[in-house]
Amino acid sequence: MTDASSLPLYPHRHLLGIRDLSPADIELLLDRADRSVAISRQSEKKASTLRGRTQINLFYEASTRTQSSFELAGKRLGADVMNMSVASSSVKKGETLIDTAMTLNAMHPDILIIRHQSAGAAALLAQKVGCSVINAGDGAHEHPTQALLDALTIRRARGPLSKLIVAICGDILHSRVARSNIMLLNALGAQVRVVAPSTLLPAGIEKMGVIVTRSMAEGLKDADVVMMLRLQRERMEGAFVPSVREYFHYFGLDAEKLKAAKDGALVMHPGPMNRGVEIASEIADGPQSVIQEQVEMGVAVRMAVMEALLDPRRNYEGRTLEGRGA
Amino acid sequence: MTDASSLPLYPHRHLLGIRDLSPADIELLLDRADRSVAISRQSEKKASTLRGRTQINLFYEASTRTQSSFELAGKRLGADVMNMSVASSSVKKGETLIDTAMTLNAMHPDILIIRHQSAGAAALLAQKVGCSVINAGDGAHEHPTQALLDALTIRRARGPLSKLIVAICGDILHSRVARSNIMLLNALGAQVRVVAPSTLLPAGIEKMGVIVTRSMAEGLKDADVVMMLRLQRERMEGAFVPSVREYFHYFGLDAEKLKAAKDGALVMHPGPMNRGVEIASEIADGPQSVIQEQVEMGVAVRMAVMEALLDPRRNYEGRTLEGRGA
Amino acid sequence: MTDASSLPLYPHRHLLGIRDLSPADIELLLDRADRSVAISRQSEKKASTLRGRTQINLFYEASTRTQSSFELAGKRLGADVMNMSVASSSVKKGETLIDTAMTLNAMHPDILIIRHQSAGAAALLAQKVGCSVINAGDGAHEHPTQALLDALTIRRARGPLSKLIVAICGDILHSRVARSNIMLLNALGAQVRVVAPSTLLPAGIEKMGVIVTRSMAEGLKDADVVMMLRLQRERMEGAFVPSVREYFHYFGLDAEKLKAAKDGALVMHPGPMNRGVEIASEIADGPQSVIQEQVEMGVAVRMAVMEALLDPRRNYEGRTLEGRGA
Repeated sequence: MTDASSLPLYPHRHLLGIRDLSPADIELLLDRADRSVAISRQSEKKASTLRGRTQINLFYEASTRTQSSFELAGKRLGADVMNMSVASSSVKKGETLIDTAMTLNAMHPDILIIRHQSAGAAALLAQKVGCSVINAGDGAHEHPTQALLDALTIRRARGPLSKLIVAICGDILHSRVARSNIMLLNALGAQVRVVAPSTLLPAGIEKMGVIVTRSMAEGLKDADVVMMLRLQRERMEGAFVPSVREYFHYFGLDAEKLKAAKDGALVMHPGPMNRGVEIASEIADGPQSVIQEQVEMGVAVRMAVMEALLDPRRNYEGRTLEGRGA
Repeated sequence: MTDASSLPLYPHRHLLGIRDLSPADIELLLDRADRSVAISRQSEKKASTLRGRTQINLFYEASTRTQSSFELAGKRLGADVMNMSVASSSVKKGETLIDTAMTLNAMHPDILIIRHQSAGAAALLAQKVGCSVINAGDGAHEHPTQALLDALTIRRARGPLSKLIVAICGDILHSRVARSNIMLLNALGAQVRVVAPSTLLPAGIEKMGVIVTRSMAEGLKDADVVMMLRLQRERMEGAFVPSVREYFHYFGLDAEKLKAAKDGALVMHPGPMNRGVEIASEIADGPQSVIQEQVEMGVAVRMAVMEALLDPRRNYEGRTLEGRGA
Repeated sequence: MTDASSLPLYPHRHLLGIRDLSPADIELLLDRADRSVAISRQSEKKASTLRGRTQINLFYEASTRTQSSFELAGKRLGADVMNMSVASSSVKKGETLIDTAMTLNAMHPDILIIRHQSAGAAALLAQKVGCSVINAGDGAHEHPTQALLDALTIRRARGPLSKLIVAICGDILHSRVARSNIMLLNALGAQVRVVAPSTLLPAGIEKMGVIVTRSMAEGLKDADVVMMLRLQRERMEGAFVPSVREYFHYFGLDAEKLKAAKDGALVMHPGPMNRGVEIASEIADGPQSVIQEQVEMGVAVRMAVMEALLDPRRNYEGRTLEGRGA
């Protein structure tokens, strides 16, 4: 990582969504992430590039893997990491998101990782605080580090994403993961197909440049990558909650349905999985599954993004790296 | 911070309340805190004065800013910081405060930060444990680091506190912040006024050396500093819970009421704020507000206090810094 | 600790239970722990033997002392420590233990500390993950670091355990502490007596090589060590919940009952204590109590175990310390 400073400078102060990134921005982050993988594979998993930097994880929704991944990424880079989960904070006393953020901001964090149930929360924060903001999931809007780690996983296994056929299957309606992935895959020239029952498709999804189908057989035909989504029953209110048995029958990935895809097609899932609902256990644990690699790449991507945002070559207007005076 | 050892030695082992401090003690801590501000404004926010020291945050009440502030202060000084929040601890199994403290004490912490719903909890701990104790709020009793950060904020903006007129307004009855501030401001020679409805005034408050009034116009007249308090409705039982609209009308700080104070008077609030209850948003976010500075000074004050308590020149009876033998 | 590498190599990859350990393994860990005690007694409590290593505390049951003890042990050795408590994790979303563990495993931890309500959870994990696993309590099965810290406490006070008479008293039925202690004490040649009402004795306890009695007077006669257990009323369902008053009368340790033991016999309790239920306060806080020492030894034992498991001389099949390739 010592000569990471020879990499191009990431041109944004925040990472709020894939929508803001050019293909070159994405490739830059993936290149950096590729270099970060090695750190976590060493016995001494420790760099000093973020030494003395303060990272705050502000999570309004519970999360095992995303929060852990950011926490470990920061610690391995030498940052001081502080977790703020809503359950144990005075957010319960009714303080607004902005007041909480302004309070944290006054403590001079370098980077704020935010997960929130409302679309746009990360962008709102970024307007208010003086530090870098990373969107770790905002409502059904975006989850950019998930899309980057998915892309890194694919690229390491299959090379450039251009021309690859990627089928994204399941609960597209509630999925920020799907949205961020569609934008990223399109930006890098992959062909994206979306497979879901019509009740789990957002209106106007076709305008995102994807092929839409309700048939797994059709959607998976010759696919290089099959990306399954978690069925987010906890976000479904009232009307439509599919029966698990029926859902699995039509949309769950099993050995039979997977045959439609290319031989050795990659199988992905952002986790946590509902085994037997959107994916059969034999597939989740089978030879084509790269679900564990996704988690590993998650740490690498988050290390890379934080290093890129806090690159010492940055020098923000009104907030020099020398501080704001003593 | 390298020559902090040239500062006078803080003469106490703990920080339990402002009541225990002489004016010289207070000035010493403020002087140290002034020097600590710079650390958090650097890109690399890291000192090593508490390297290898163990700090435990034992919080029986939820807190965003106080616990975070202590956590970051400790981490930036190089301490190992451990959070113990009651929700996730065996305190739920019915263990007493003292047994919990004795258990933690046996793990050789250097400093224990305690927040508890009962007045006197911190002092009780300090009698039992072998390490330094900082009171981070005990019932309606004291919250000394809040008073110190408020004083530091005022002193940096207005110079010496002597002769300044400070109006503390709102829910005095439930406020340890008010109590600690009154004692500190009196000690440094400020003139303190207290403004509240009679139902939110503790009996005998006059004996604390303050001027008491139920009129904001009277209390704020020519004030240098207007310190608003959070209306702690969660602590009000039964009889009197003021209607928000009425409370704001009479005691909420808005532009009109603020006119009574000196031009450019500082507006303060310990947070979290009830916007539109005790303070209007336009004032909270306005040019006279130093609410964000208070938060920043909070980190600096906590760094200073912990460094002062763990000053290597200390050598407690029965517990030398070389340890208690192997 | 610098020449710890001259100690014999601990021959296992995990610490799942006392049952797996030879007397030599136990003595090796106790010898290492003896050396670790000094670190926590220093002013600068910091070693670097686990620098850059990742420790994850995965606790499915709340715990003050065990989790804190592991956390401080890891931090003092320089590890990056991450706490995963179930309350704030997506385990709530219904993910299985194995999926959670595999996810964490993909983040390349070096050591996973697991506490779980089901017997066998730690062993199950150990089969699945690529890192070392320490059992921090699995159901009513084992709690090996507790038994090791108890043994260390006894050994430091009384020398070799061989021939010592140890009475373990109280709720044996629900106690993993009792089970691990019985196995360890037997392995080192102590004579173990078990004292409990028959309703709190597991079936077949006699086969563990202990003397069983329902009389405190008989069980404590000439004992060198009296080890009281927590009455785990939270684990008792339906039928039998003893009345506290009656339980204390027959099985609570008070001055009168303690007279049966040897003069100056050690009094132990794993905590958290129910004062006035299984132990009288005057005894818990009295001169024969080594309850605080147990807590102190807990940190030392956990440091020693983690160092032994992550000894750089280890080189696991299929997972060299140089990593698994880039």
